Amino acid sequence: MAKLPPQHVLKFSRGLVMNYVAMLLCLKCTFCPSLSGVYEEHNGTSRTAGMNGSGPSRLVDPLEDPLPGVGTYEDFNTIDWVREKSKDRDRHREITNKSRQSTVALLHSISDAFSGWLLMLLVGLMSGALAGGIDISAHWMTDVKGGLCLRGFWFNHEHCCWLSNETTFQERDRCPQWQSWAELITGKSEGPFAYIVNYLMYIFWALMFSFLAVILVRAFAPYACGSGIPEIKTILSGFIIRGYLGKWTLIIKTITLVLAVSSGLSLGKEGPLVHVACCCANILCHLFTKYRKNEAKRREVLSAAAAVGVSVAFGAPIGGVLFSLEEVSYYFPLKTLWRSFFAALVAAFTLRSINPFGNSRLVLFYVEFHTPWHLVELAPFILLGIFGGLWGALFIKANIAWCRLRKTTCLGHYPVIEVLVVAALTALLSYPNSYTRMSGSELISELFNDCSLLDSSQLCGYKQVSVDNSLADRPAGPGLYTALWQLALALVFKMMITVITFGMKVPSGLFIPSMAVGAIAGRLLGVGMEQLAYYNHDAVIFKGWCSQGADCITPGLYAMVGAAACLGGVTRMTVSLVVIMFELTGGLEYIVPLMAATMTSKWVADAFGREGIYEAHIRLNGYPFLEPKEEFEHSSLAVDVMRPRRMDPTLAVLTQEGMTVGESLVESTHFSGFPVVVSSESQRLVGFVLRRDLLISIDNARKRQDGIVSASQVVFTEHTPPLPPDAPPPLRLRCIMDLSPFTVTDHTPMDITVDIFRKLGLRQCLVTHNGRLLGIITKKDILKHMAQMANRDPDSILFN
Amino acid sequence: MAKLPPQHVLKFSRGLVMNYVAMLLCLKCTFCPSLSGVYEEHNGTSRTAGMNGSGPSRLVDPLEDPLPGVGTYEDFNTIDWVREKSKDRDRHREITNKSRQSTVALLHSISDAFSGWLLMLLVGLMSGALAGGIDISAHWMTDVKGGLCLRGFWFNHEHCCWLSNETTFQERDRCPQWQSWAELITGKSEGPFAYIVNYLMYIFWALMFSFLAVILVRAFAPYACGSGIPEIKTILSGFIIRGYLGKWTLIIKTITLVLAVSSGLSLGKEGPLVHVACCCANILCHLFTKYRKNEAKRREVLSAAAAVGVSVAFGAPIGGVLFSLEEVSYYFPLKTLWRSFFAALVAAFTLRSINPFGNSRLVLFYVEFHTPWHLVELAPFILLGIFGGLWGALFIKANIAWCRLRKTTCLGHYPVIEVLVVAALTALLSYPNSYTRMSGSELISELFNDCSLLDSSQLCGYKQVSVDNSLADRPAGPGLYTALWQLALALVFKMMITVITFGMKVPSGLFIPSMAVGAIAGRLLGVGMEQLAYYNHDAVIFKGWCSQGADCITPGLYAMVGAAACLGGVTRMTVSLVVIMFELTGGLEYIVPLMAATMTSKWVADAFGREGIYEAHIRLNGYPFLEPKEEFEHSSLAVDVMRPRRMDPTLAVLTQEGMTVGESLVESTHFSGFPVVVSSESQRLVGFVLRRDLLISIDNARKRQDGIVSASQVVFTEHTPPLPPDAPPPLRLRCIMDLSPFTVTDHTPMDITVDIFRKLGLRQCLVTHNGRLLGIITKKDILKHMAQMANRDPDSILFN
Repeated sequence: MAKLPPQHVLKFSRGLVMNYVAMLLCLKCTFCPSLSGVYEEHNGTSRTAGMNGSGPSRLVDPLEDPLPGVGTYEDFNTIDWVREKSKDRDRHREITNKSRQSTVALLHSISDAFSGWLLMLLVGLMSGALAGGIDISAHWMTDVKGGLCLRGFWFNHEHCCWLSNETTFQERDRCPQWQSWAELITGKSEGPFAYIVNYLMYIFWALMFSFLAVILVRAFAPYACGSGIPEIKTILSGFIIRGYLGKWTLIIKTITLVLAVSSGLSLGKEGPLVHVACCCANILCHLFTKYRKNEAKRREVLSAAAAVGVSVAFGAPIGGVLFSLEEVSYYFPLKTLWRSFFAALVAAFTLRSINPFGNSRLVLFYVEFHTPWHLVELAPFILLGIFGGLWGALFIKANIAWCRLRKTTCLGHYPVIEVLVVAALTALLSYPNSYTRMSGSELISELFNDCSLLDSSQLCGYKQVSVDNSLADRPAGPGLYTALWQLALALVFKMMITVITFGMKVPSGLFIPSMAVGAIAGRLLGVGMEQLAYYNHDAVIFKGWCSQGADCITPGLYAMVGAAACLGGVTRMTVSLVVIMFELTGGLEYIVPLMAATMTSKWVADAFGREGIYEAHIRLNGYPFLEPKEEFEHSSLAVDVMRPRRMDPTLAVLTQEGMTVGESLVESTHFSGFPVVVSSESQRLVGFVLRRDLLISIDNARKRQDGIVSASQVVFTEHTPPLPPDAPPPLRLRCIMDLSPFTVTDHTPMDITVDIFRKLGLRQCLVTHNGRLLGIITKKDILKHMAQMANRDPDSILFN
Repeated sequence: MAKLPPQHVLKFSRGLVMNYVAMLLCLKCTFCPSLSGVYEEHNGTSRTAGMNGSGPSRLVDPLEDPLPGVGTYEDFNTIDWVREKSKDRDRHREITNKSRQSTVALLHSISDAFSGWLLMLLVGLMSGALAGGIDISAHWMTDVKGGLCLRGFWFNHEHCCWLSNETTFQERDRCPQWQSWAELITGKSEGPFAYIVNYLMYIFWALMFSFLAVILVRAFAPYACGSGIPEIKTILSGFIIRGYLGKWTLIIKTITLVLAVSSGLSLGKEGPLVHVACCCANILCHLFTKYRKNEAKRREVLSAAAAVGVSVAFGAPIGGVLFSLEEVSYYFPLKTLWRSFFAALVAAFTLRSINPFGNSRLVLFYVEFHTPWHLVELAPFILLGIFGGLWGALFIKANIAWCRLRKTTCLGHYPVIEVLVVAALTALLSYPNSYTRMSGSELISELFNDCSLLDSSQLCGYKQVSVDNSLADRPAGPGLYTALWQLALALVFKMMITVITFGMKVPSGLFIPSMAVGAIAGRLLGVGMEQLAYYNHDAVIFKGWCSQGADCITPGLYAMVGAAACLGGVTRMTVSLVVIMFELTGGLEYIVPLMAATMTSKWVADAFGREGIYEAHIRLNGYPFLEPKEEFEHSSLAVDVMRPRRMDPTLAVLTQEGMTVGESLVESTHFSGFPVVVSSESQRLVGFVLRRDLLISIDNARKRQDGIVSASQVVFTEHTPPLPPDAPPPLRLRCIMDLSPFTVTDHTPMDITVDIFRKLGLRQCLVTHNGRLLGIITKKDILKHMAQMANRDPDSILFN
């Protein structure tokens, strides 16, 4: 599972230097093929007929299984949930039955029952530890862009000055031990020359980090790029992408995530942390037979790992579980709910004991507001929701258009240059503005913060009016006005740069940039409201709840609501988003504003297109993902969707007796499965055989079973039919036939058929009419039909 | 839906006085028939064959529908989820198509889309308001048992003294305006005589309230008794119990809940609040066609209402949603998740604005602990988990045994006397002990509370050691020792009395009594640990984290963990329970102890039997409930479960042409549905017809369609077959035939079949072999098979 694809091993052995040179020159290299590229390479061409074929069977270890390879899947294919779950139940039943016989078997049965919990514990511990490591390294490397600590280069800015005795609380980020690059190089800390040196060093490090990130991704683990959430959604829905959750992806994604975040690009680490947690889970699954050998069971663990990812990203375990349930998972039984909750808790507490933020808080943005909100404020909150929805819709359209451009034009052939250009642009434009210079999470943290009297930040540059009530609304001073201008510029910059950043070949999350955009907009509106209330406290809308000298408006709360609205607009999360935000504040008080903003944002954004960013990327990449949230709205019947179509040749079927080993039906067609019927006249269905199983079994029988030759009859019946005396012994293959294929009648409405596919996780379903076999519907057929109904290109669905 | 069953209307008209006299004498009356009684009365006998019949079709309004009654369900039958959802999609599609034609239709489409949210808003408002009313009334009536307020009889104790100026903070529950019954009657407030007068008045009121409660329930709404959660689970899984969620049930349940809680019986109001919220939702559904006419859509609203119920019971909206998801719901799409969250929030805020607890807190038990917990403390927490699990398992076994006794012996014929005896016993035994005299929620509140220095409660009767550190562990004083003795007695009493209280014919919830038992046990252990730590702070286990004069152990936290453990043992909730508890404290800190205790409790209790109390009651009552959490563990095939069995006569089928209107197959059998085949020789399946639809259609055609006589042929084909020239016109019934019946092959493992039934919500499924129809499996067949496999009586499943 976790092996590098062969072309990468090859490349690795060829020597890295060659690669780097080539990449620097970027001679139209396709070292980091997109997923569809890998697929096409792997399968020859992208076929479009129903029940598409799979490549040649891979080499299998003949000692592993009585009939090795039967019941496994090809890469880039969809699993059969029913078969997998049935397999697991058989296994479980066997263990339970055995456990009554001996003590060893009983112990085995108990350890088997608890292996799920043990696995969750390990996933939580590993992900929590990794997240802690990523946080610490990213923090340090972000600070390295500005300077170094003389006490020891491994200290970050805060830590360096914290150790210093000369620091006062007021100026806790200034200390002699921490020296900017200008000081280190030129010895001067002030003046335009020092500024330019710092500026250049900042750009240098940004380029350095981003270059390293993109090179590492391209050389060792092409799957480590992006946020990973669209692919994880697809994998959880039953698709197989070998190596996507492997150890190389984990190692490279962890390293490059730190580099990418530190480079100052407009991206976050939250989405990739979900990918990292899923990699951990997938690797740890190999320790337990139960999970290693069963694709459905493994997906249960991956669902829980997605919860773990968000739990460590925000310190919000409940929000993480709901995120997995609402946004990522496909099959989420209650057992998984309990286990994800457990794993998310373990991970959150592991992270807290590592204490990367140095405040012994679990959460990323800890805030505490002192003032309740007033009902009138719902109006600006809903306004923020509308802004979030509009921005979300716009962002998705712009980003998808940009990514499509990258896919279809030559832009996509120079990913390293692209990353370097964007990194340089980002560094160049963001350094002069202190709000873009700081990292995304620092910015959000500052925007969420409520101003106290002692606060020295520019955002709290109010004029002092009275001293006795430190929290009262105050008029804005010149410092605040400057901050507002800078924030407005930062808003425009962030909105632009995020569109072209998301989707580049580096690990990139979308949570932090989206939240940053919303938080800036919210803070601007919040300060505006505050000043409005201060100068017009006798106006109708403020009368009765906002008298002079009172603390009515909390701009930090507006920032928070704005962040939720923008993130909601982009991802279309609702409940999980509100719960994550609720866990950050810990107060039920602010749920209503958050709820109002996220619901508005979702409704507004849905009016422009019902897809969130992840679904849009799934569609862009042509993954076979059957959206569980969307209803099938058309009135087609199964007969309209099934293959063969009216003009097509009839369905390729096997008869239960009569085919010979050498017959070429299997070889001459590319279908990946065949229905077995009693006879081709009656078309009465007996079962269903997968191409892969059939090929492996015939191959195996020819090698090992005596007397099996090309003329041997293949028999699917229970009892061998009478054969002519000179005939070679028949090959009995009833054991590989699925005796319970799913069928629907030709008159079944497609909405019911889609429901069956979704709920049971089918790969294919046979269509009958009055008891006769008529055709077949595959998941791909359904997706193509849905694409056609939505006036999209049905050939955009690439995989089975 | 909300009408009283006919026998009750009758009884009502007969005059209430007669009833009361009869009930007081309790002449073996069966006025409050159990659900199974109603069913048997309704259906003649409890039939046992597969595909059981339904009673005579009820009278329908002929103007309502083109073919009235077709597509509706009998009482005590299971709905077909697939058909209902398909109906709703058709409706939705029609509205969407129309909306493109005119502005009115567009507005209609928009209002239709938002009607779900509007309904949720109304459900939240109504349930919140009702819960507020219940809280206030129950508080007042509980206090009335002790005395009256001279300032106005409608003030409760706290409110009465709060208004008094003479009250100090220390003695805030003593004021001259509040007079005990002894003071009112005899003028004396102290002395043994006054005590006896108060004691007697307490018993009098308890009897009075409980008598009123049971009489009201029996006379007006027999469905108002019990907690309602088992029935709601069954209804949500697709069963129909008309009147269970009707307006009479709502009114009577609301009133009697107040009475039952105030009577001092060992019961809570949390479970019944879920029932009340579901009644509100069901009644409000009648305002919207979308929900009135569709059983599946209505169940989505009911799922959300269950969340609302818990949300107002504990002030925990997120916990409520998870409770609905984990414990109650069957079909819980994401849309319902968002809507339940919204409704739960609205309800919680409505309740808060009513402010029944007078502390402007949202939650029932607000606690704030000051000390973090230590890893060593996990050992006692897990001990509490074991206690909770043991008690849960024991309670379920004892309670079910008691309820079975009530069902099968003459005990069940005297429910009024039973309630009165239990109420008298409870009042008699609970008055002398102050911890049983107070209401369950007051007790829990006091046990959860952390002792401060000023606390005058007996539980905080520590010896004063030092004044400077008010929160340090202190040695127990005589007050505390008395309290501990009383608590130990209260624990035994509560454990006993709850077993016989739950299941009586009054509204009774289980949350508060279970939590009370756990909280007492936890507090006892907590105080024990505290004293242990105080006197042995140099011992190995306390060394390093618990020095002298430090505040190490918080007994209130132990009470909380114990409460969660006991509730978890009884109901087998995990995540929702932890989240509810988390919302009560608002601190993520205490999630780990809670998690450890609830998981241990679940594991321990599961070792004695996998059913929670609600599932046990569902099974006791024989409802057709297919547990979604449990895996089907046996290796049977569909052919083993289907009807007809090997010895039975062949399956009753209709042929698609050839049956006449007068033919007696439908009348002579009791099956509630018939497969339609091409011909009885080929047994090739065409569709499935429901008995009810067939009867209604034939009846309708005979009355209205010209020329339809007994000899008319019934035709299910698309085109009418050639008929002899003298034949009467045929009756074409293809429109009522389900053209897409679900089929499985005879070799399908039952685990897959059960999965299909569960996930798609089927009522029946046809079984084929090589394309020929072989038999049928109904939900009841599956439940009977499962009962048989678990060595239970398969005839305990009563309903279809």
